[in-house]
Amino acid sequence: MKTKRFGVSMEDELLEKLNRIVEQKRYPNRSEAIRDLIRSSLVEEEWKRTEEETIGVLVIVFDHHQRELSSRLLEKEHMRSGEILATLHLHLDHHNCLEAKVIRGIPAQVQALADELIAMKGVKFGRLIPATIGKNLR
Amino acid sequence: MKTKRFGVSMEDELLEKLNRIVEQKRYPNRSEAIRDLIRSSLVEEEWKRTEEETIGVLVIVFDHHQRELSSRLLEKEHMRSGEILATLHLHLDHHNCLEAKVIRGIPAQVQALADELIAMKGVKFGRLIPATIGKNLR
Amino acid sequence: MKTKRFGVSMEDELLEKLNRIVEQKRYPNRSEAIRDLIRSSLVEEEWKRTEEETIGVLVIVFDHHQRELSSRLLEKEHMRSGEILATLHLHLDHHNCLEAKVIRGIPAQVQALADELIAMKGVKFGRLIPATIGKNLR
Amino acid sequence: MKTKRFGVSMEDELLEKLNRIVEQKRYPNRSEAIRDLIRSSLVEEEWKRTEEETIGVLVIVFDHHQRELSSRLLEKEHMRSGEILATLHLHLDHHNCLEAKVIRGIPAQVQALADELIAMKGVKFGRLIPATIGKNLR
Repeated sequence: MKTKRFGVSMEDELLEKLNRIVEQKRYPNRSEAIRDLIRSSLVEEEWKRTEEETIGVLVIVFDHHQRELSSRLLEKEHMRSGEILATLHLHLDHHNCLEAKVIRGIPAQVQALADELIAMKGVKFGRLIPATIGKNLR
Repeated sequence: MKTKRFGVSMEDELLEKLNRIVEQKRYPNRSEAIRDLIRSSLVEEEWKRTEEETIGVLVIVFDHHQRELSSRLLEKEHMRSGEILATLHLHLDHHNCLEAKVIRGIPAQVQALADELIAMKGVKFGRLIPATIGKNLR
Repeated sequence: MKTKRFGVSMEDELLEKLNRIVEQKRYPNRSEAIRDLIRSSLVEEEWKRTEEETIGVLVIVFDHHQRELSSRLLEKEHMRSGEILATLHLHLDHHNCLEAKVIRGIPAQVQALADELIAMKGVKFGRLIPATIGKNLR
Repeated sequence: MKTKRFGVSMEDELLEKLNRIVEQKRYPNRSEAIRDLIRSSLVEEEWKRTEEETIGVLVIVFDHHQRELSSRLLEKEHMRSGEILATLHLHLDHHNCLEAKVIRGIPAQVQALADELIAMKGVKFGRLIPATIGKNLR
């Protein structure tokens, strides 16, 4: 297969960190490390473009003292009910709650609902894991 | 073992329902049905008097439209954190949420926390299941 | 409303425990305590006879060392999938697992599935909480 | 801050996909897209090197027909009990189960436990989300 070469510019500090990743993960060179990063980001991009129903797990951490945040979260979730199959809730400490929500739908919808919840004020951390189901599972 | 006999008074309607239970569950007579009801209520009474750490599962159903209920629930729960190990949350329909909370503690504490949560305005249904752990399991 | 009176026989030991319940819960007399026990057992009996779809929460505690128990539990559950909405699983200690399963269906089905799971060898404790939904919620 | 430039080689096909990401996410150029990929991978690398206790959420999808997989999963988990705080389990279809496990520990331990569970035969998909807690939360 044909290969192309192109230039990438980077601040010294970030380049050093890239070099450390190359070393720690024993990549043969920087190109292979960067190709690997692109490939894994493509998995998520491709997932988002699928039209088949799928499952995603959204993890959020939020401060329950944030005024009425949990009430507004529930409000939003119920308007989209049928999509959130179940939520696991843990009290991490006096302030922080962790929730893992299993969401079903077309990836674009799952992502949109996740983005909406993550964007709410008081949500300190949010990440959506695209999990594939059915025939897409290898 | 010595047996005593005593009288019980009951409205006609309730007596008929007792008779139906006796028939359906094939009890030999009303006395045996009543003894059985007393015995199973004793299990819970004895659980509450234990001083050993135990586990209870609290099931509540609530209307999330009830103003700020979920925020107040979380507030109460965090003040008692360390006791509620995890919560499973399901959206039943546009209005109703179901939560199953696993609570650890001395039975009297578990019961007190459960009672406090059940008593909150907007909680439509609440029941605590005393689950025994460790050496108490038969 | 008309009231009837009938006799109940009981071993001394159980009668003493009944007397203690009457005292602790401040019932005016033994008849009222017994009527209360019958009434609360009727709630569950009536739940079982409803033909409307409802929700139950099954709590089980089991020893995961019991050979293949968890595999057989999953097998049974998947054959009835669509009924078990979600399961919360906690490792209580080196031996014991606690699971809370949210089951949807006609009460008779929910009860049948719960009974089947509770009856499996290795399940040390099992209790089904009938939770009502929709218009039945007071 | 000083900037360096270096060459990266890539197969035509992968380069085209990179170009599509640049376009879709409206990056000004390829360099910025690559710098962004490196930065987000650093978050995970740095998480793994922390010595503070933290929380991770592991999502796995597995085929419960895989002989005794669930029993072996539980076995492994109980040997490491205290680390897995709670598991949410859903039956996706006749074959597949999804589990979200909340794991507590030093990141290296959390990662090691996650890797061990993901590596088990019959686990079709596994991803660990590093969630930070306490003062690390921005």
